[in-house]
Amino acid sequence: MTTPPFFDVRMRGFRARAAVADVLALLDRRTAPLAASPVPLSAAAGRVLAGAVASAVDVPGFDRSAMDGYAVKAADTAGATAGAPVALDVVGEALPGRPFAGAVCGGQAVRVMTGAPLPAGADAVLVAEVAEERDGRVLAKAAVAAGKNVGRAGEDVTRGRTLLAAGRALRPQDVGLLAAVGVGAVGVVRRPRVVVLVTGDELLPPGSVPTGYRIVDSNSPMLAALVGRDGGECLSTRTLPDRYDAVRDAIAAADADVVLVSGGSSVGTEDHAPRAVAESGELAVHGVALRPAGPLGVGYVSGRTVFLLPGNPVSCLCAYDLFAGRVVRRLGGRRWELPYRTTTLPLAADVASAAGRVDYVRVRVSDGRAEPVGGGASMLSSTVVADGFTLVPAERERLAAGETVDVWLYD
Amino acid sequence: MTTPPFFDVRMRGFRARAAVADVLALLDRRTAPLAASPVPLSAAAGRVLAGAVASAVDVPGFDRSAMDGYAVKAADTAGATAGAPVALDVVGEALPGRPFAGAVCGGQAVRVMTGAPLPAGADAVLVAEVAEERDGRVLAKAAVAAGKNVGRAGEDVTRGRTLLAAGRALRPQDVGLLAAVGVGAVGVVRRPRVVVLVTGDELLPPGSVPTGYRIVDSNSPMLAALVGRDGGECLSTRTLPDRYDAVRDAIAAADADVVLVSGGSSVGTEDHAPRAVAESGELAVHGVALRPAGPLGVGYVSGRTVFLLPGNPVSCLCAYDLFAGRVVRRLGGRRWELPYRTTTLPLAADVASAAGRVDYVRVRVSDGRAEPVGGGASMLSSTVVADGFTLVPAERERLAAGETVDVWLYD
Repeated sequence: MTTPPFFDVRMRGFRARAAVADVLALLDRRTAPLAASPVPLSAAAGRVLAGAVASAVDVPGFDRSAMDGYAVKAADTAGATAGAPVALDVVGEALPGRPFAGAVCGGQAVRVMTGAPLPAGADAVLVAEVAEERDGRVLAKAAVAAGKNVGRAGEDVTRGRTLLAAGRALRPQDVGLLAAVGVGAVGVVRRPRVVVLVTGDELLPPGSVPTGYRIVDSNSPMLAALVGRDGGECLSTRTLPDRYDAVRDAIAAADADVVLVSGGSSVGTEDHAPRAVAESGELAVHGVALRPAGPLGVGYVSGRTVFLLPGNPVSCLCAYDLFAGRVVRRLGGRRWELPYRTTTLPLAADVASAAGRVDYVRVRVSDGRAEPVGGGASMLSSTVVADGFTLVPAERERLAAGETVDVWLYD
Repeated sequence: MTTPPFFDVRMRGFRARAAVADVLALLDRRTAPLAASPVPLSAAAGRVLAGAVASAVDVPGFDRSAMDGYAVKAADTAGATAGAPVALDVVGEALPGRPFAGAVCGGQAVRVMTGAPLPAGADAVLVAEVAEERDGRVLAKAAVAAGKNVGRAGEDVTRGRTLLAAGRALRPQDVGLLAAVGVGAVGVVRRPRVVVLVTGDELLPPGSVPTGYRIVDSNSPMLAALVGRDGGECLSTRTLPDRYDAVRDAIAAADADVVLVSGGSSVGTEDHAPRAVAESGELAVHGVALRPAGPLGVGYVSGRTVFLLPGNPVSCLCAYDLFAGRVVRRLGGRRWELPYRTTTLPLAADVASAAGRVDYVRVRVSDGRAEPVGGGASMLSSTVVADGFTLVPAERERLAAGETVDVWLYD
């Protein structure tokens, strides 16, 4: 991969922009899942297993009834029908956790509930629906084969079996199975810790009313929500003044796996973040051939991955989703792929791009077609009215109306 | 819809089972979203809006530069090229939140950053890439049209516009947009409060090692995870002894919107929950034509919806997903539909069912086909190795290998 060497591009514009594919290759190469950390089972759903889990026990640990009914010797019921039932003596009862103390002999039955240990001597369970109990006897109205309605020891899980592989995002039923085999805590990939830094003297904190020439920071609440969606932990969001030392010091002080810096990533006189990263560590990428997120930067400072995200909210969303989100997910042991459902639809209109550049195009789904949504990179409302987006590949200069494209759906 | 009248079915078997479609129609009719509750924006992502939200402000509130560059009178740049640039006097600077105090006159330019208020007198922004500043002057190397690179007041959001409709599950960008218009808290549908009651003297709490004839409760951790997935709040999970009064009192004491009772829902002597619900309120359904979740019960006690879920873990999962999960989601303003991705695949083998009964069939996806996974209702591991499930419709007695079926994918 070729990355342009860093130079101070302030007020000179980007000379060379990295290809999207090259930036992705760099991130792919330099990002690996974090170490394991134990969580109690009650907090494990949705987390990613750091290692395989095997069972130390058989489940069930004993033969048991799979139905409510009567434990019998199957041979005793041979030929039984509703018209010609077979009568058996009910000699006791077995409940889950409360076995029958004796054994079932010929001509006898033991009332059993689902999950009860199968009494000694019995080899099948006659279900309640074909049995009628009266005065200490039960009428079997059907024959039952040996082994019928009996769950054998170890039939669910055999001791030593690997239940779940490393990398598994735990389903609700996985958590149930782990409980069943006696696991109380599991090692999961640690959640990536993310700090969001937003630069801009004009910004008011979320919850403020925009006043005069000041606008409200919309990127930090959006980024915090995106990080949460991707399994990361957003430790803090902070608004910084447009001063070089403030930006540099905040990046250096961020005790996190990933630092997202929003704004100040471009080539203006107030764009301090690229220099701060270059001088504190490594600025691996500055400028990417991607519309509307051209001013993206990627760097590494003291082992942390630092993303310089454009301040325009659409650009910020695009840059997060295409690059930073993948790193957050990968660090947490999750998928590299975009976390959106996809569909393929014909385009409702032409889309202009440029050779060598990827375009992120917001679309609305209407009449089974993907209709491009207009609006510049500053118009966050366009991503609210859009149903999703498509990408114009780098090798294409335009897409034509009627062409079938991949659409990533926001919901 | 016809629901069978309640009668004590203990040890007599179900006489009539309700059709799955009828149970769904009942739940659909009797379940409506909960009331609104306010949350701060920082907790709003993923929540469901209780009412529409309109903007009280224009965004932006002023004309602003969409790029880094120079605010100019467009007419001054007419005919400018790289070879024949036009020189303009740089008379000042405008930054985001820090406007230029004066006005741009003919032959003048003001250095502007993206987001800076457009200075009076200027009508376009020349981007930095085609400008060269030196000794107080800037060379415009291209012409720029009036309005170019200028974001107009209100172009993103016009005051009074409805931004988001009631029922919207808030996306990260929605949260950003709400911040941008000065919203600090929103009214969202209250999260359904769910209590899980697990009956069974044989059960050990999650985290225990199964010992002797006692097994570990796998349903409560699974149900808690399912409730969380569906946007509900699992207030508590409690293990109850198999005693009528314990079950009745726990249902009565549950301060929740939904009570999930796992186990004790069938027709055994220890199945107290159906009677407890019938005597404390209304047992609307007991027994459903669904394999493997036939012993389902649905009732209403003091305004709470009570689900009697079978104790077998596969049955419990099936009954939760097909019925209870929908109610949790609907109460929270979410979708009735199953929360799984779907696909259509040919079946790899025949599947037997029975007319009038729906079958929940776990499948593995292998070689592009849906391969039924064996195992009884007690084998939770079958739902762990399966990739999803298909449903045999009530009107079908069997499905044949090669038939294309809908598959709901667990992940």
